[in-house]
Amino acid sequence: MHLFYQPEPVQHLTEEDSRHAVRTLRLKTGDSITVTDGHGNRHSAVITQADARRCQFRIRDTQTTVPRPFSIRICVAPTKNLDRIEWFIEKAVELGIERISFFYGQHSERRALKLERLEKIAVAAMKQSLQSFVPILDEALSFTDFLKTVSEDQRFIAHLSDQKPPVSLLKAAATGGRYAVLIGPEGDFSDAEIHQAVSVGFQLVTLGPNRLRTETAALTACQILNVIQWEY
Amino acid sequence: MHLFYQPEPVQHLTEEDSRHAVRTLRLKTGDSITVTDGHGNRHSAVITQADARRCQFRIRDTQTTVPRPFSIRICVAPTKNLDRIEWFIEKAVELGIERISFFYGQHSERRALKLERLEKIAVAAMKQSLQSFVPILDEALSFTDFLKTVSEDQRFIAHLSDQKPPVSLLKAAATGGRYAVLIGPEGDFSDAEIHQAVSVGFQLVTLGPNRLRTETAALTACQILNVIQWEY
Repeated sequence: MHLFYQPEPVQHLTEEDSRHAVRTLRLKTGDSITVTDGHGNRHSAVITQADARRCQFRIRDTQTTVPRPFSIRICVAPTKNLDRIEWFIEKAVELGIERISFFYGQHSERRALKLERLEKIAVAAMKQSLQSFVPILDEALSFTDFLKTVSEDQRFIAHLSDQKPPVSLLKAAATGGRYAVLIGPEGDFSDAEIHQAVSVGFQLVTLGPNRLRTETAALTACQILNVIQWEY
Repeated sequence: MHLFYQPEPVQHLTEEDSRHAVRTLRLKTGDSITVTDGHGNRHSAVITQADARRCQFRIRDTQTTVPRPFSIRICVAPTKNLDRIEWFIEKAVELGIERISFFYGQHSERRALKLERLEKIAVAAMKQSLQSFVPILDEALSFTDFLKTVSEDQRFIAHLSDQKPPVSLLKAAATGGRYAVLIGPEGDFSDAEIHQAVSVGFQLVTLGPNRLRTETAALTACQILNVIQWEY
């Protein structure tokens, strides 16, 4: 199965996918392809014009996946070593995640982040794990500006500070919610940031007894919010 | 804090750590170091001879961590791209894992595995996450030989086949156990292997609704077996 990604409601592949389809895979007019829009739709289609810059197709059939009855938004500071964020995105897409937001904390080491490469990783992971949704990736903002974007009703903040929060995310989160989880940067949150988050409704939680790297903590939060939904 | 690893009950660093301590960090006689043995002991020590080939130290004080009241053994086929297993080991050590075993399945693509590099990654992750245990890493065996080494009482096998097992690892595992979890290779288990595992007491379980890569599945099993122990 040749799987392509076209987020727009048009019947031609992106320039990159057109090149890949026609030049690399040598697909021809009449060949069958599958195109996902990353919003839950997966089209069975046939190539109508095998143009390496703008490969046209016609949709024959569309399978629509409904979104999960809960949503996970993980909010994280970019790690110094970007591989770690890239890895997190791949894994989070495999597990299912709706949105990833980035912020620069007082103790963040990295102060620049390009989304383009991260979006490619998200799309590749979506294809590989046979899913139909690609998460929203938000441009990095200052912590204060980021907080203004939070509309989720279930808000949690996980951090490393010495006084461990008495409750885990596992017990604090109710099923079926819209979750926003703040994960501390490598240098952890400042006290001021924690105070600021708590003042807009974020609850302090722990992700377990161990000290976790930023990206491991972020993935652990996804796992926990997934498993509390399971009824089997 | 300068943290070193010496698994043997001796009061000198390994050759590699000696070089690192004396040449790279330029530690001198009289300097304080911390040495963990990977079996739960963490020694506060002082350097008595700053020799770059065999740095001697004297233990002043030892902190002992008791093992967890449960144990997790993940049994996995080496992935084609070894980075993925390396990544899994780093993350599993952060989360806490007692043992990782490797087997060659009928559908495994990789047929050779050197443990030396994996052991280094495990030790580095143990140091980084401030833990005192390094997991046992077993040499890769054939699937049949591997099965003979299983002594754990709670045995689970996670695989991708079309008929999803009706029960998740979350619900099937009882707390406080000694767990062995078999994770399917990239080409999944063969029917014969699944049958063989079931015949020695492995229970079929699912790790959730999504199709996961081998290393993501392995880490998901660790996460699930951790969270079922949490009482907070």
